Amino acid sequence: MKTTDDQLSQIFAALADPTRRAILARLSSGEVSVNDLAAPFDISLPAISKHLKVLEKAGLIERTREAQWRPCRLRAEPLKDAADWIETYKRHWEESFDRLGEYLKKIQKKEKRS
Amino acid sequence: MKTTDDQLSQIFAALADPTRRAILARLSSGEVSVNDLAAPFDISLPAISKHLKVLEKAGLIERTREAQWRPCRLRAEPLKDAADWIETYKRHWEESFDRLGEYLKKIQKKEKRS
Repeated sequence: MKTTDDQLSQIFAALADPTRRAILARLSSGEVSVNDLAAPFDISLPAISKHLKVLEKAGLIERTREAQWRPCRLRAEPLKDAADWIETYKRHWEESFDRLGEYLKKIQKKEKRS
Repeated sequence: MKTTDDQLSQIFAALADPTRRAILARLSSGEVSVNDLAAPFDISLPAISKHLKVLEKAGLIERTREAQWRPCRLRAEPLKDAADWIETYKRHWEESFDRLGEYLKKIQKKEKRS
């Protein structure tokens, strides 16, 4: 299954909100009902539902139909596609941090000498 | 330097668009002028400028002031913060893929027997 450009955009858009990221963090330790998910946040149930819809559309959560309380469950697989996309830039950020490290070393040497 | 919740949201929001991801991909091979960046896309220069502003605000590109043509340059460091956040879910997607693998093995065994 190949993630399309549009799916990748939906995944990143879903992650672009601290409440939605907190919901995913909560679900990473197991299934949770919508009411329990909403409890720690100072926002309305409809607002939580809206966030859940965004996460569901991005494929990052699913609402199970088995139990009557219809708990939410994390679906982490699409996060791998996001991780794979970002990882293609790893060489670039490693080079930047290497350059910063070299620069700091130079500064420290100069300070020692003076 | 710790990335705040808000910065992380800006980074993910910046990545949630195929044109902006294509701009980053283009810049990963070196500095490019705004005109050259716009060329492969069928959108106006003001539209490209808007995308560049989103990327700049997220800290993913910078406009150099050295040259008169003010080229854009990739800044990959914030992508590491995004990667670090996503990586915390790695165990979850690996478990999902393991479960899928086990399931496929079971199916194949059944097919062999019948």
